[in-house]
Amino acid sequence: MFSEIMRKILDGTAGGVGAVLMGYDGIAIEEYFKPCEGVDLHLIAVEYANVLKEIKKTAEILQTGIMEEVSVKTERFQVVIRTITDDYFVALTLAQGGNFGKARYLLKLETQSLREALA
Amino acid sequence: MFSEIMRKILDGTAGGVGAVLMGYDGIAIEEYFKPCEGVDLHLIAVEYANVLKEIKKTAEILQTGIMEEVSVKTERFQVVIRTITDDYFVALTLAQGGNFGKARYLLKLETQSLREALA
Repeated sequence: MFSEIMRKILDGTAGGVGAVLMGYDGIAIEEYFKPCEGVDLHLIAVEYANVLKEIKKTAEILQTGIMEEVSVKTERFQVVIRTITDDYFVALTLAQGGNFGKARYLLKLETQSLREALA
Repeated sequence: MFSEIMRKILDGTAGGVGAVLMGYDGIAIEEYFKPCEGVDLHLIAVEYANVLKEIKKTAEILQTGIMEEVSVKTERFQVVIRTITDDYFVALTLAQGGNFGKARYLLKLETQSLREALA
């Protein structure tokens, strides 16, 4: 169930190189990575899990409401992350020039299906 | 000089409620905030400075290139952050329903002017 949804998100996004459904503890439930030279996409997801925990905490302290989406753009990649439940998130990694808007759209669209699949 | 550019970014973005030019140490050079009930926009910027430092470090460790842009969407706000130099960033806070695309566009457009104003 997860795998179908994750594949749909990754394949539907031009420039998508990796999709992972992961806990904030850095342990992945499902992951797909396309070969990508000189970079460990799994490691990127694990490292971002740590940062996300910080952002989540910050949002709660500041009372700005639940964290819904985070994106980080570096020179080589763009990572779009969507909160699924209090324990899990999906991260989609795009290569430079990938379709950021489509990534956000698909992640938002599939949030509910992923939530149901996790329940 | 900063002030003009910052105002241009804030006023040009529908739903923009705050703009700040800040160091990663959480000290602001210039800031504009519109009155916003029940939330301290300055504090949000300071808290995000901390998180940004983490993301910056993560990007360097993972060798994914320099961090260029970060955005965080919570239930009530959306914050778009753009790296200006190795020491400074701009954060634009939007209320729910604000024009996220325009915020990203204007921040990118004005990065060079802000860099020159800082030099």
